[in-house]
Amino acid sequence: MINPILVQALRGGIVESAHRGALAIVDASGQVHTTLGDIERPIFARSAVKVLQALPLVASGAAERWKLDDEELALACASHGGEARHTQVAARMLAKAGVDVAALECGTHWPYHDGALKALAAAGESPSALHNNCSGKHAGFVCLGCLMAEAQGQDARAFLRGYVKPEHPVMREVGAALQAATGYDLAHTAVGTDGCSIPTYAIPLRHLAHAFARVASGVGLSESHARAAHRLRQAVAAAPYMVAGSGRFDTRVMQHFGARVFCKVGAEGVHCAALPELGLGVAIKMDDGNTARACEVAQAAVLMRLLKQDEADAALLGSLSDIALSNWNGIEVGRLQAAPELRG
Amino acid sequence: MINPILVQALRGGIVESAHRGALAIVDASGQVHTTLGDIERPIFARSAVKVLQALPLVASGAAERWKLDDEELALACASHGGEARHTQVAARMLAKAGVDVAALECGTHWPYHDGALKALAAAGESPSALHNNCSGKHAGFVCLGCLMAEAQGQDARAFLRGYVKPEHPVMREVGAALQAATGYDLAHTAVGTDGCSIPTYAIPLRHLAHAFARVASGVGLSESHARAAHRLRQAVAAAPYMVAGSGRFDTRVMQHFGARVFCKVGAEGVHCAALPELGLGVAIKMDDGNTARACEVAQAAVLMRLLKQDEADAALLGSLSDIALSNWNGIEVGRLQAAPELRG
Repeated sequence: MINPILVQALRGGIVESAHRGALAIVDASGQVHTTLGDIERPIFARSAVKVLQALPLVASGAAERWKLDDEELALACASHGGEARHTQVAARMLAKAGVDVAALECGTHWPYHDGALKALAAAGESPSALHNNCSGKHAGFVCLGCLMAEAQGQDARAFLRGYVKPEHPVMREVGAALQAATGYDLAHTAVGTDGCSIPTYAIPLRHLAHAFARVASGVGLSESHARAAHRLRQAVAAAPYMVAGSGRFDTRVMQHFGARVFCKVGAEGVHCAALPELGLGVAIKMDDGNTARACEVAQAAVLMRLLKQDEADAALLGSLSDIALSNWNGIEVGRLQAAPELRG
Repeated sequence: MINPILVQALRGGIVESAHRGALAIVDASGQVHTTLGDIERPIFARSAVKVLQALPLVASGAAERWKLDDEELALACASHGGEARHTQVAARMLAKAGVDVAALECGTHWPYHDGALKALAAAGESPSALHNNCSGKHAGFVCLGCLMAEAQGQDARAFLRGYVKPEHPVMREVGAALQAATGYDLAHTAVGTDGCSIPTYAIPLRHLAHAFARVASGVGLSESHARAAHRLRQAVAAAPYMVAGSGRFDTRVMQHFGARVFCKVGAEGVHCAALPELGLGVAIKMDDGNTARACEVAQAAVLMRLLKQDEADAALLGSLSDIALSNWNGIEVGRLQAAPELRG
């Protein structure tokens, strides 16, 4: 099956480039609400499932033990831009659990946020693991690991070492939460290594959308995971800046919609959303792996089709699903927009 | 017609993302040597045709009048990274013609080259139009315009104003060269505005490949354009760093192959090449507009199929058409490679 075009870039009155992809919208019972393209082929969900990977942090009691607040829990679900506030909150999470940046095994990269990158360069500094877009998720893993170490009377630093490996107790817990939420057998699917070195599992869009419908409603999750999902959604709604950052799609959408929408991007063109008022989950994967330009525009069009909207809601979603492309002189040269098939 | 997959990204043993596209290889007589996908649909060639747009600079005598050297002529064909040497040479071209950066109408953006961007930020400076990746092409337009103004006894600055507009004498000359080389009627095709504000015309891949076969051989060009094409290929072969920059595909390929290959990337996933020893032209467009990741890998695979290679040649092209993808901890997590259909 060849997936349909979901997003296209227009210039000079013609389609200059086009992005194919697949989309699943599913309810908590697993019933498929809407489908476009192949939703049964396993795809790597990457960072789009960070909220599922954060369920054990809350369900285990670690979030309570280390007194994590909304900002910190939102950062545990984040692919952030490495802005100053993001790195401060990541450092604070580690400090609360009694460790520091040396515990992080996510690797280091320059901030994704352009201003943060230039500010760091202007200060003559280099990035640390705190600037890694996954540092909040990893700080969450570390907080979970520190609770496990404490419960077993072990030294936290020694216990944490290698927490990114699939066989480590922390990652086993994280994998189990992912499997429970998606209902997909992770032992018999392709496993890759993610950018931040943890395992990433190939899961069909139908299962990913189902997991997000469960996050939206709590239905089909264990009691502790249902409570954790609710707490995490609440935290992200309260601190949406932490989940992405200045000007970023997920932050903008959740700053506007609050708890009505939970949504999250993943590398290689993945985007997932939980819509509590509809009890639906959404999962999108662009074939070509394009993220900011393709899957976010597609998700905006999906939200536009699904959500009840007032004028301000429609204006925001319109501006995110049909975007003016300007050149270096600020002249509008084209548009990036959801394809007719997706706009419905 | 749905174009075939030309490039794919692998992770965990499966295809994570894939890039579709079309490819035309044509000789100077216009005969099609190889084709994949739809080569008749007009596409915006963007910066891939800078060498065609630079033909009037040489053919008019402007390059000789302003004593432009290899570096300067290579920069006139470039999408450069805004590294120090690039901006210096662009400034030198303008100075030779008696004007300065104020003459450039390409707009301003931060250097594409990561190190140059950080160095500029670290120095507390902002970019100028010289850092625009198109500043060399525009400096070439300005040099052409200064000669025209001189011939007409006009003030250069006044004459140049608005040179990016299709109706300006400079841009009319540039459009005529593009039409002559491609043999495509630009008056009756879609016209867009490029990133640097000049017009970009929709031209089928078959015609673009034909134009590059003409650049490779001189056959089918006017005598002055044939000489200009030869001069420009020679200049880029002598100064391949100027055409792109540190670590960039076009620079690496031409540093290695010298005058055996002329190749050039364009925005939105376009790549063209002229192969003098085979008398062939190549034109590639990726459907999704992905450039560095997709069309360059595809071009490397095409060169691997077409060129006679020694061990070093094969090693370079192999490394550019089958690339290890590493994560933030330097672990190899996948590969980016030309699809089987393209590798042949």
